[in-house]
Amino acid sequence: MRPSGRTLGQIRPVTVTRQFTAHAEGSVLIEFGDTKVICTASVDEGVPRFLKGQGKGWVTAEYGMLPRSTHSRMRREAASGKQSGRTLEISRLIARSLRAAVDLSALGENTITVDCDVIQADGGTRTASITGACVALVDALNYMRAKELIKTNPLKHMIAAISVGVYKGEPVADLDYAEDSSAETDMNVVMTDTGKLIEVQGTAEEEPFSFDEMNAMMQLAKQGINELFDIQKAALA
Amino acid sequence: MRPSGRTLGQIRPVTVTRQFTAHAEGSVLIEFGDTKVICTASVDEGVPRFLKGQGKGWVTAEYGMLPRSTHSRMRREAASGKQSGRTLEISRLIARSLRAAVDLSALGENTITVDCDVIQADGGTRTASITGACVALVDALNYMRAKELIKTNPLKHMIAAISVGVYKGEPVADLDYAEDSSAETDMNVVMTDTGKLIEVQGTAEEEPFSFDEMNAMMQLAKQGINELFDIQKAALA
Amino acid sequence: MRPSGRTLGQIRPVTVTRQFTAHAEGSVLIEFGDTKVICTASVDEGVPRFLKGQGKGWVTAEYGMLPRSTHSRMRREAASGKQSGRTLEISRLIARSLRAAVDLSALGENTITVDCDVIQADGGTRTASITGACVALVDALNYMRAKELIKTNPLKHMIAAISVGVYKGEPVADLDYAEDSSAETDMNVVMTDTGKLIEVQGTAEEEPFSFDEMNAMMQLAKQGINELFDIQKAALA
Amino acid sequence: MRPSGRTLGQIRPVTVTRQFTAHAEGSVLIEFGDTKVICTASVDEGVPRFLKGQGKGWVTAEYGMLPRSTHSRMRREAASGKQSGRTLEISRLIARSLRAAVDLSALGENTITVDCDVIQADGGTRTASITGACVALVDALNYMRAKELIKTNPLKHMIAAISVGVYKGEPVADLDYAEDSSAETDMNVVMTDTGKLIEVQGTAEEEPFSFDEMNAMMQLAKQGINELFDIQKAALA
Amino acid sequence: MRPSGRTLGQIRPVTVTRQFTAHAEGSVLIEFGDTKVICTASVDEGVPRFLKGQGKGWVTAEYGMLPRSTHSRMRREAASGKQSGRTLEISRLIARSLRAAVDLSALGENTITVDCDVIQADGGTRTASITGACVALVDALNYMRAKELIKTNPLKHMIAAISVGVYKGEPVADLDYAEDSSAETDMNVVMTDTGKLIEVQGTAEEEPFSFDEMNAMMQLAKQGINELFDIQKAALA
Amino acid sequence: MRPSGRTLGQIRPVTVTRQFTAHAEGSVLIEFGDTKVICTASVDEGVPRFLKGQGKGWVTAEYGMLPRSTHSRMRREAASGKQSGRTLEISRLIARSLRAAVDLSALGENTITVDCDVIQADGGTRTASITGACVALVDALNYMRAKELIKTNPLKHMIAAISVGVYKGEPVADLDYAEDSSAETDMNVVMTDTGKLIEVQGTAEEEPFSFDEMNAMMQLAKQGINELFDIQKAALA
Repeated sequence: MRPSGRTLGQIRPVTVTRQFTAHAEGSVLIEFGDTKVICTASVDEGVPRFLKGQGKGWVTAEYGMLPRSTHSRMRREAASGKQSGRTLEISRLIARSLRAAVDLSALGENTITVDCDVIQADGGTRTASITGACVALVDALNYMRAKELIKTNPLKHMIAAISVGVYKGEPVADLDYAEDSSAETDMNVVMTDTGKLIEVQGTAEEEPFSFDEMNAMMQLAKQGINELFDIQKAALA
Repeated sequence: MRPSGRTLGQIRPVTVTRQFTAHAEGSVLIEFGDTKVICTASVDEGVPRFLKGQGKGWVTAEYGMLPRSTHSRMRREAASGKQSGRTLEISRLIARSLRAAVDLSALGENTITVDCDVIQADGGTRTASITGACVALVDALNYMRAKELIKTNPLKHMIAAISVGVYKGEPVADLDYAEDSSAETDMNVVMTDTGKLIEVQGTAEEEPFSFDEMNAMMQLAKQGINELFDIQKAALA
Repeated sequence: MRPSGRTLGQIRPVTVTRQFTAHAEGSVLIEFGDTKVICTASVDEGVPRFLKGQGKGWVTAEYGMLPRSTHSRMRREAASGKQSGRTLEISRLIARSLRAAVDLSALGENTITVDCDVIQADGGTRTASITGACVALVDALNYMRAKELIKTNPLKHMIAAISVGVYKGEPVADLDYAEDSSAETDMNVVMTDTGKLIEVQGTAEEEPFSFDEMNAMMQLAKQGINELFDIQKAALA
Repeated sequence: MRPSGRTLGQIRPVTVTRQFTAHAEGSVLIEFGDTKVICTASVDEGVPRFLKGQGKGWVTAEYGMLPRSTHSRMRREAASGKQSGRTLEISRLIARSLRAAVDLSALGENTITVDCDVIQADGGTRTASITGACVALVDALNYMRAKELIKTNPLKHMIAAISVGVYKGEPVADLDYAEDSSAETDMNVVMTDTGKLIEVQGTAEEEPFSFDEMNAMMQLAKQGINELFDIQKAALA
Repeated sequence: MRPSGRTLGQIRPVTVTRQFTAHAEGSVLIEFGDTKVICTASVDEGVPRFLKGQGKGWVTAEYGMLPRSTHSRMRREAASGKQSGRTLEISRLIARSLRAAVDLSALGENTITVDCDVIQADGGTRTASITGACVALVDALNYMRAKELIKTNPLKHMIAAISVGVYKGEPVADLDYAEDSSAETDMNVVMTDTGKLIEVQGTAEEEPFSFDEMNAMMQLAKQGINELFDIQKAALA
Repeated sequence: MRPSGRTLGQIRPVTVTRQFTAHAEGSVLIEFGDTKVICTASVDEGVPRFLKGQGKGWVTAEYGMLPRSTHSRMRREAASGKQSGRTLEISRLIARSLRAAVDLSALGENTITVDCDVIQADGGTRTASITGACVALVDALNYMRAKELIKTNPLKHMIAAISVGVYKGEPVADLDYAEDSSAETDMNVVMTDTGKLIEVQGTAEEEPFSFDEMNAMMQLAKQGINELFDIQKAALA
């Protein structure tokens, strides 16, 4: 029933390539099927002004898409002079999710900026970004410990994310573009590897959804995210 | 236990003032306790370019805050030259929610723009905005029918919204600023008066939340929103 | 002869509501007939860079219109990414006028920002803004004295403003939109309650005006502004 | 008493150089003493969208200052990405004044854009701009008649402008920078050669001014502007 | 003598990966040693306004760098709201070079946009971009012929580019970052496979250079570019 | 053969007017035939942030065109809110060229900003700008020495610039607009008065050019620039 032939709860093949580029303290290429995102984590001394002098660190994130990562070319945001609402919304989501994974007071007055740049899009770019960003973040934290910039590990738990939805009346996990563009409902879920929720964002695209549908989607999300944690851990092993 | 002395599921007094300003086809002042938002619905001929020639209409929304609607003055977005990610995110949320309430093909090639401008903020500005915007939208649709711009009523159902959260370990409904600024979790829920969900946006501000906490919040949301539908209907009677 | 049936020198009913919103140190809703403006005065520590270290304070102002305060919806300036020349011109006029009322050296290194946001427009928004802003300013200065941020009262005199014009060949005071949009000449006058002039801005919209017409308008302005001072004082009593 | 040794009503030497640059339909260098402004009038087919199809023309203006036209270098507005409020205000003043001199319905669907660029500033740049712009406008209209783009002369009358002020308690005409920067009051007056007023903009910089002072300034303005009309006519002869 | 141990005229290993991403009509990953650039060519119907109705096509290009493609993180241009002068300069260079390779009148009213996004930078990003962009362009033109959007091959010749410079007094080819950041002179050369020049841009970074040094650099450039043409042709075979 | 009747290597009449405006430390009007550029050099204390505390100075430049310096009016960059790529590219070229002429460490922590504003354009505006900017720079350095802001002369050598090109198959020097707009190749060359090269920027506008053509152009450039040095020196004598 799914265009890809997958079962309802089946996620796409996921690969995680660490050290994908040379300069960043953490650099990951994550692939959720045909969705491909470069996630780099950059460590910089200092914190934004509102945090200065508190001895705490900061984690932030920015999201972008290459102009032709999509089916038809999108206008380059740097050229149009502003980031779209969607771009800012996703950047904020990634940043909030990552901050929920880190004890900022164990980070010292340092900032980690995670850039998630989509080079090929086939649905689920924000959930792939979060899942890859967490791996890049771990590499950056390891770098900081190796350089003795921090004394303890600020990571509280791993995080990963998946999209779920209602497609042709059935709950499905990890929607690709063919599903996403015609799904009745789309929900993005971010969880910790301790089984708790960080973010839940559900939107009725075509039809309002019931509480039962929501529960069914949440169960698929939990199961799919658990698979992602295994993949993250294997990549970091 | 709540700073306001309310019970866990108790929402703030809500008032809806229609015809609040003179020029808009729909104009509502909505108050959720000390949160006050002016919602105007403007009807214009024509649709955005991507819809031209399809015989369908469009509903969009913009959100803003007066600079001193908040405890300390915020920089005016018109002066800083751009809208913040938060502003754009809320504008998009309101617009999506309203579009879910309207049969766009019954609207003709007309656009309704709903502006939600916060004149006083005490938590819950986005949920008050959605709840007030729906009343302004109804007034605008009634205007269109009276002017014979449309033949049938495009409204599929009413929508309303409430924030719920986990505050000091307990699920609470309709958080005010004192609660919102220290809640562990914050969730905004938009529903139809047919008991279905339009949007669910939950965020772990301090602590990840469990599936059980999420369910408890969802129950409070359902109950609170039902009260809002009664208030909307009384206002429109 | 006037669309509203008023006599040539008759101003509209003016109401001043103090403490209109909760957070600002001064908050006034001023109504000149159907023109309604929210004026808030915000007190902040510190001064702009060019004044630092001189022991003097600063007073500034910003003006805006809600998108549907007007007959047809205007584009939101925050969304278009810049303020129009008209907006900046009015902001500068309000700010200059207020600074003329205050002894900046008695203000300490503090800044008062007055925001004038039009929620309903029917002509004369800039003169209503100045007249209401002065009341909000007085409330903010009283707050500063109560908080012992300043030792003496920096207010040199009250200010108020009115528009006058030539409409169908006759000088008239306090033009509403119906008059303003077809007046031959439009003049805005700001005065002190000591009978002196702060600003005079006269513009020939349709026809050049004579020195005699200017004098007639100035006399109407003086008389109308004196009524405004009575209303301000009653509101502050 | 005046820094320049001039009498109270004496204006600076004014020179008008036509055909100052090669490409514009009208191109004038105007000098008010050490203030030097290049005014070019450009004729283009077509009108702004709001005028299309009405058979009328449009006249507009833009004002700018070279970064080092002033005592210390100002930031280039093109580099900072926006025009200041002062720049926009002066552009609007010049444009309104010029439109008051032209019968737009005799202009056909053509637009004349007058650019006033200050290459050296010593006070009175806006009044020099208006006075020079009117000459450039006449040259552009003559060009249009020669090219048979218009059939009748759309010019209703000449316009010219001067600044007057109160300096050390005395009314003075055509303030230079030394006076302007310490004047109590500054007033810009635009008049027609038929003895009527187009714009009056008076501002109390230091001290409020009386009605008597205003009248005294207006008399000086009238007298000075009449001298400017003689100079314009000599230049155009 | 060179940090990399290369001989003076030796270029870095160059690899060209076609079909690197899925959606673009031409998509190439080009690597000049550790410099890696994704070049996508997008075909769209229509041309910019200034070309409409002439039956000719257009080729344009945009260049960007991922924020952490460099040693330390650069600010994201989409977030800062404008492209730097360097970015625009390189975009213009790539676009001009590509247009010199194409007979625009054989392209019909179609536009090809080539995006060059640097994912890892180690010197020579603009020359790698041009060399890779030409391969992506060929793929896009082949796509157009296969889809019968064009009848003849608009490609006049291949182009490729290399940087040359004077490093520690010696002319060298294809500078990497270690050389580029301390070279006395830096020159970028774009050539056709017919042995002619498209662009020459030489800059004295530290020391002016002589005519003899320029000639020596030009000879190295010619030789290096010829190697690049062999690599392009092998990739396209 | 040339539209102007000049011989192939003949440059246009060049005039240099120093002290053209009053306020700048260096102010030059340079004319290359009908191309006229005002070049002002402004001296300011302090350096950009990246240079602070190193005891070195900085030289930078900005380029602009008056809207009607060209055949048809261009949009004012300050009004459109951004500088074009061409403008930024030329600004960067002028700045780099000037820095190559100055020993920054002899400048102290001072910044010289050279503004080149084209008031009339007839081809070669960037080369006229550089040639005039160098004279303005010398005047500013002389001012600094006279004011004892610097102890030694930071000027390493004079610089001047010329455009050369291939026009109707022949190499020509100092192209005017008639030639420039139809030349096959356009090359800008910046040299020192010690006979060395600072910048070479050659572009095939219509047809790729050969190495021989490049050499022929370089010889013409050398000869023309030597004439410019004589003119600069005469002006500075």
